[in-house]
Amino acid sequence: MAERSVKVGLIGLGVVGGGVARLLLEEKERLAEVLGAELQLARAADLDEKLAGELALPAGVYTAEVNAILDDPAIDIVVELIGGLEPAKSFILKAIAGGKQVVTANKALLAHHGAELFAAARQKGVGVAFEASVGGGIPLIRSLRESLAANRINACLGILNGTCNFILTKMTAEGASFQDVLKEAQARGFAEADPAFDVEGIDTAHKLAIVTALVTGAQPRLEDIPTEGISRLTPLDIQFAGEFGYKVKLLALFNQDGGGVEARVHPALVPRDHVLASVDGAFNALHINGDWVGDVLLYGLGAGRRPTASAVVGDILEMARGILGGGRGQTPPLGRAGLKNGGPLALKPLSEAVCQYYFRFTALDKPGVLAAIAKVLAEHRISIEAVIQKGRETGGGVPIVMLTHEAREASVQAALEIIDGLEVISQPTMLIRKA
Amino acid sequence: MAERSVKVGLIGLGVVGGGVARLLLEEKERLAEVLGAELQLARAADLDEKLAGELALPAGVYTAEVNAILDDPAIDIVVELIGGLEPAKSFILKAIAGGKQVVTANKALLAHHGAELFAAARQKGVGVAFEASVGGGIPLIRSLRESLAANRINACLGILNGTCNFILTKMTAEGASFQDVLKEAQARGFAEADPAFDVEGIDTAHKLAIVTALVTGAQPRLEDIPTEGISRLTPLDIQFAGEFGYKVKLLALFNQDGGGVEARVHPALVPRDHVLASVDGAFNALHINGDWVGDVLLYGLGAGRRPTASAVVGDILEMARGILGGGRGQTPPLGRAGLKNGGPLALKPLSEAVCQYYFRFTALDKPGVLAAIAKVLAEHRISIEAVIQKGRETGGGVPIVMLTHEAREASVQAALEIIDGLEVISQPTMLIRKA
Repeated sequence: MAERSVKVGLIGLGVVGGGVARLLLEEKERLAEVLGAELQLARAADLDEKLAGELALPAGVYTAEVNAILDDPAIDIVVELIGGLEPAKSFILKAIAGGKQVVTANKALLAHHGAELFAAARQKGVGVAFEASVGGGIPLIRSLRESLAANRINACLGILNGTCNFILTKMTAEGASFQDVLKEAQARGFAEADPAFDVEGIDTAHKLAIVTALVTGAQPRLEDIPTEGISRLTPLDIQFAGEFGYKVKLLALFNQDGGGVEARVHPALVPRDHVLASVDGAFNALHINGDWVGDVLLYGLGAGRRPTASAVVGDILEMARGILGGGRGQTPPLGRAGLKNGGPLALKPLSEAVCQYYFRFTALDKPGVLAAIAKVLAEHRISIEAVIQKGRETGGGVPIVMLTHEAREASVQAALEIIDGLEVISQPTMLIRKA
Repeated sequence: MAERSVKVGLIGLGVVGGGVARLLLEEKERLAEVLGAELQLARAADLDEKLAGELALPAGVYTAEVNAILDDPAIDIVVELIGGLEPAKSFILKAIAGGKQVVTANKALLAHHGAELFAAARQKGVGVAFEASVGGGIPLIRSLRESLAANRINACLGILNGTCNFILTKMTAEGASFQDVLKEAQARGFAEADPAFDVEGIDTAHKLAIVTALVTGAQPRLEDIPTEGISRLTPLDIQFAGEFGYKVKLLALFNQDGGGVEARVHPALVPRDHVLASVDGAFNALHINGDWVGDVLLYGLGAGRRPTASAVVGDILEMARGILGGGRGQTPPLGRAGLKNGGPLALKPLSEAVCQYYFRFTALDKPGVLAAIAKVLAEHRISIEAVIQKGRETGGGVPIVMLTHEAREASVQAALEIIDGLEVISQPTMLIRKA
């Protein structure tokens, strides 16, 4: 049926790249029916030749040499799936300079250098698509960029790391410790041998940087996004949060509804009847509030070979349609004609955040402890919504658990510094913010 | 900033049309920033001139005469928001014939005549966008058509009517009767004075027809979609379903995973831990299973002025980008280059459906009743997973409630005909299928 063929050059044949290669090969007929033209995997590059054999690439497709793709004028679309900053960045810039359309799933690269790549693409009049960089197979980039384009996005709450959500779901269901669940996740291949990138929230911060750029049209600096992970959370805190009516999730929070732009990553209390609270296991979700659309939730598998390949090939199809149609009329990478200039997006510092707080104080079992804590909080204008004090022994002290009304982070930190210095307090206080 | 202006002609200034007019007027600067060109509400037609005043349309925009839009060569995009079959269909066909891009939210028209409109648009080389026709502000049409375009969609489960979901949520929370909650919903403006279109599932069937066309590329006949509403449901059934671990939702079900294509609308049991079970109140959602992406859920407000206007203006922006880019490279209405021909999509008849069933028998309080029912079921090869028999009096009999294993609809109907003829059965049996 195909009069013309659109030629794809794939860089990287790992988990995601291999999935994209298989999808393009196995579903060739379906994709041709959708596109009205052949979508051809013309070349695929990886340093590891073994992968080409495992993927059963047709003869002549595999190359060890990336430039066989980047220098080939017949390649229409370059798909970068090696991840990391370099050489991915140089490859993409060279593809752009050669007038090729670019598809990438590289969240770290976009979080660090998205503005530079998008500016280069704009100057050259080519597109950069990146649906797979956030939320794997979930159609959230295109939804924010196009379907919801008429809205001012007031706030987003994201569960954007499947490893963390898997660990927290298990800790919640089984009362198990972070370390025990992490070991199990590693044994089952759900967590990396070096888990810090996931469990310390860095991966989530990369994704939040991309969502923030998409929503505001300006790129934040990654180091301006306050980022805390889940390794310090205990089953005790998850259980107490449950008694207050909350689940604990690692959230990416974006908000521009209260003056200034906030973007932060940390564990957070989510009300049990909020739709995000039911996002469990390896699932990801983004909850969006727009000024016209109201609340929207987009939910699905945030990682894995097949869901991520689905998103990458969705982007390839979009690029291919643009090429077949003459290469114009496509939505720009951040969904708006003019990118904001004047340097990186200014974010509100964490000290100015205002939210409710969960505290778990660990105190000696003496009378007057609660009064001493309450006095310090009152002096910092932090008022208490609920207290649980059950006198349970937890090695080194009795937990006193509180949920505050809304308070300012700076006041909270000042109060905790004083409280943690009290003689009756035997361990540093645990703090979890409310979403 | 705008060099060029894209001109929009709006037909219909009711709830949704009025919302679109306000969005285009109030957010003019934001939309120009997104598009890189002015998006101008050039003309707006409605028979009711009063509406133009209420919306504070600028001078010269209002017209009582639709042809002032359809015959104006300067109008680029025609937005049809009057609903219903005629004259909406004639207006759209005339707009297409005039080479204008079309945006509509008209689910009834698309469900009945989508294939004809899409064929006309294709012949003329213009686009028809309809994000707002299903799920209001939820970005589900574009997600199915573009982001998930690489997938074969195996199954969809939709909660697509906010009125029904509001009523069922209230019946569940309060144990109230359908009639009482309906009256309250009508008093609060959540249900129409004539509620049959919503509560008998017709609106949901229209939306399912559109989703089915999008997913298969072929249009089903509306009369081939088995459709049951929620008016026969009782609080007793909702309570018993809860005891089995299920919520009751009005679902649009699409499935092509088991040979043949199924599309049906009826109340259904949803496992309480399924993500759809937490879609409550006026919210809508579509749960999608694709062969590569796995499970995806898209959730949001399925109706209302502002969410629906958000979707319509998202479509207008897409059309405007295409026009500014030269009018090519856009995704066709059903997301594929070639529509399937050869008449309407053949759907599996309901009699061939296979699923689990909830039965509530109403029997005289005599020994041997359960044995008599079980014998008939066994003769029809319907096996029982669980039984609740509590001897509660419910006016005219004692309820016996069952959940079956998977059974075939034809066998179930044959068995129920015999059972309902037994002397010990005092009322027709209630049946609810499992999702």
